[in-house]
Amino acid sequence: MNDLLPNLSSSVFLSLPGFRLYALCVIVLILKMNATGLLTAMTRARLKVALNAEDAARFGAQLTTAEHPDVDRVLRAHRNDLENIPSFFLLGLIAVMVGAPVLGMQIAFIAFTAARVVHTVSYVKAMQPWRSMSFGIGSLANFALMVMIVIRLFA
Amino acid sequence: MNDLLPNLSSSVFLSLPGFRLYALCVIVLILKMNATGLLTAMTRARLKVALNAEDAARFGAQLTTAEHPDVDRVLRAHRNDLENIPSFFLLGLIAVMVGAPVLGMQIAFIAFTAARVVHTVSYVKAMQPWRSMSFGIGSLANFALMVMIVIRLFA
Amino acid sequence: MNDLLPNLSSSVFLSLPGFRLYALCVIVLILKMNATGLLTAMTRARLKVALNAEDAARFGAQLTTAEHPDVDRVLRAHRNDLENIPSFFLLGLIAVMVGAPVLGMQIAFIAFTAARVVHTVSYVKAMQPWRSMSFGIGSLANFALMVMIVIRLFA
Repeated sequence: MNDLLPNLSSSVFLSLPGFRLYALCVIVLILKMNATGLLTAMTRARLKVALNAEDAARFGAQLTTAEHPDVDRVLRAHRNDLENIPSFFLLGLIAVMVGAPVLGMQIAFIAFTAARVVHTVSYVKAMQPWRSMSFGIGSLANFALMVMIVIRLFA
Repeated sequence: MNDLLPNLSSSVFLSLPGFRLYALCVIVLILKMNATGLLTAMTRARLKVALNAEDAARFGAQLTTAEHPDVDRVLRAHRNDLENIPSFFLLGLIAVMVGAPVLGMQIAFIAFTAARVVHTVSYVKAMQPWRSMSFGIGSLANFALMVMIVIRLFA
Repeated sequence: MNDLLPNLSSSVFLSLPGFRLYALCVIVLILKMNATGLLTAMTRARLKVALNAEDAARFGAQLTTAEHPDVDRVLRAHRNDLENIPSFFLLGLIAVMVGAPVLGMQIAFIAFTAARVVHTVSYVKAMQPWRSMSFGIGSLANFALMVMIVIRLFA
């Protein structure tokens, strides 16, 4: 029976309602964050600036101490990701684990993921009120997950 | 039997010792981080400064390149969260999954969560040695979870 | 039977292929991030600078508004961690949960963990191309985990 446990449990996870969608949203959001990091590097390359002396020497770039405003903008978008996306990663996982309502989870997962993609695009392209709206929708999705989790914890 | 698996497994998670307290602490810490983000926005609004041209135009704020010291302080408190709280999220979850001692987990979860709330308040209000003490207690709680996990992994 | 569930399930997690190695890598990476945070504090102490008035008063340090270049370097290394390590935490956990190929997981877990240790050392010591190479290996390991997860999700 011990030999069967591993197979059993990986089936259990895959069969948890919402788990597949959750895992896909995590991957989309990580690829989106990787793209933001890549955009920072590409913006520095385009402006031919570097903050590390070893990079300036290597790429023939100008060494600076302060970031260019265009780089700073991408860094702020990325930082906003770091302040919000890891929270979703945990709330989504816990929601799946406690068996939150499937439709509620599906709406929250898709809304959060779409909102964060729109947030990055609208931040980088200086599009308001899209940036504030997408930030708000992402926060609401996280808040909805918290409510669903608390209800299950005390049900 | 396949139809029963999902319900079975969400009961399994909820019945894991420490899981309910862990989930509650995650939610409290996420709400605390959201409050820190809100404080950054409120401090910028109070000082009538903005870092993005589109925000300066929208809210009639002064466009700046460098943050005001009051905003920088809140950002440092928030960054310290980002450096420490995601680690707790993982360590707490793994501790629950490996069945760490229940009392040890309860003390670590509550100590970490309380310490990080005190850390933010004492950082924003420039209260030392409270800030350093609360940072230390949070780090100790994380370290205790690591020890409990390693013991279970090799037991 | 309800009394047996908790013990059963913590055994289930520990018996999941790859889980023990995953948990160890999480702990190594958290200790590494803690060390980076400590290095920031030690660098500020060595340079006798502080960004908070209450710290300057307490430690007899010089109050500054801008970070010293040596501190900025450590902070950039740490920020790069925050942009990449939480993603690994989730991808590794999901890979274990869905039962990704064991050898593939083992290679990805060890490669990512080793690469991120090398990344921090080579960033702090300004060693190129080691920094870029280790960053790339870490990103590849995360990407490999994503591919393994997606294959299992749709298998």
